[in-house]
Amino acid sequence: MALFSKDIQTMDDLYLHTLEDIYYAEQQIEKALPQMIDKASAGPLHDGFQSHLQETRGHIERLEEVFRLLGEEPKGATCPAIDGIIKESNQISKEISDSSVLDAALAAAGQAVEHYEITRYGTLIAWSLEMGHDGCADILQRSLTEEKAADEKLTQIAEQRLNKAA
Amino acid sequence: MALFSKDIQTMDDLYLHTLEDIYYAEQQIEKALPQMIDKASAGPLHDGFQSHLQETRGHIERLEEVFRLLGEEPKGATCPAIDGIIKESNQISKEISDSSVLDAALAAAGQAVEHYEITRYGTLIAWSLEMGHDGCADILQRSLTEEKAADEKLTQIAEQRLNKAA
Repeated sequence: MALFSKDIQTMDDLYLHTLEDIYYAEQQIEKALPQMIDKASAGPLHDGFQSHLQETRGHIERLEEVFRLLGEEPKGATCPAIDGIIKESNQISKEISDSSVLDAALAAAGQAVEHYEITRYGTLIAWSLEMGHDGCADILQRSLTEEKAADEKLTQIAEQRLNKAA
Repeated sequence: MALFSKDIQTMDDLYLHTLEDIYYAEQQIEKALPQMIDKASAGPLHDGFQSHLQETRGHIERLEEVFRLLGEEPKGATCPAIDGIIKESNQISKEISDSSVLDAALAAAGQAVEHYEITRYGTLIAWSLEMGHDGCADILQRSLTEEKAADEKLTQIAEQRLNKAA
């Protein structure tokens, strides 16, 4: 979450700010994924990132729906956390030439991204219910379910690579 | 994960680098937690951060044990991901004056930290088993179990706050 021009006084402000944080994060992930798709060698990893790119575009649309439900204009708030996670992924990718090692690093980076999204959506769903935004909670839950499935898929891909290496 | 002076050529290099990444991250978390403890108003949140500070010190010692098992010198590698997560937590905290809203933001920030650690330890344990470092996997699993419990505790604290507010 980054600085607003105004202070965060209420739970409404914090809730809206966190929506803007994850909206920005999803957009950064949409920009970062094509490079991860290009770099991934193994078919399942490549395809997993490809399908998550489609999902990510759906998550952005869902967030726009949540903003509309709240009567707010969709906008992003710079999020140093996702910027750091993506920067780390880019840095490590540049360091690796071996395709199998690179795939392992990319899968790990993908899981770090998923876990950031899982924690933010989890928080937003709890706050939605607290604040009576049940419709928003339902929409956000659909994205959370997909993020958890994407993380699980990356775990399975890592395990398959592991069994192949053993 | 940040840049090594040398390239990452093998899984051994990637494994060691990721250990250095989480070693740095745990040290940054140890530095950040006292401020979060000071800012937390609600007793359970304050106490939760306090006990996690003790756990974090234990995680640092465990990582040093893992480095020793590998015959490596413990050292940290600058990790833009945890730097970003902590920066975001500090920024948002400065924006909030209401103690109840601040507690909600701090709990959310704590969960973002936990999820970063959960994903890194999960990856390292999988790689440890792949590479035959079963002793390292056992040590890292103890920290992962504590990170997951800390995340769960923060969820419970958020729910209690939620029920109180309802």
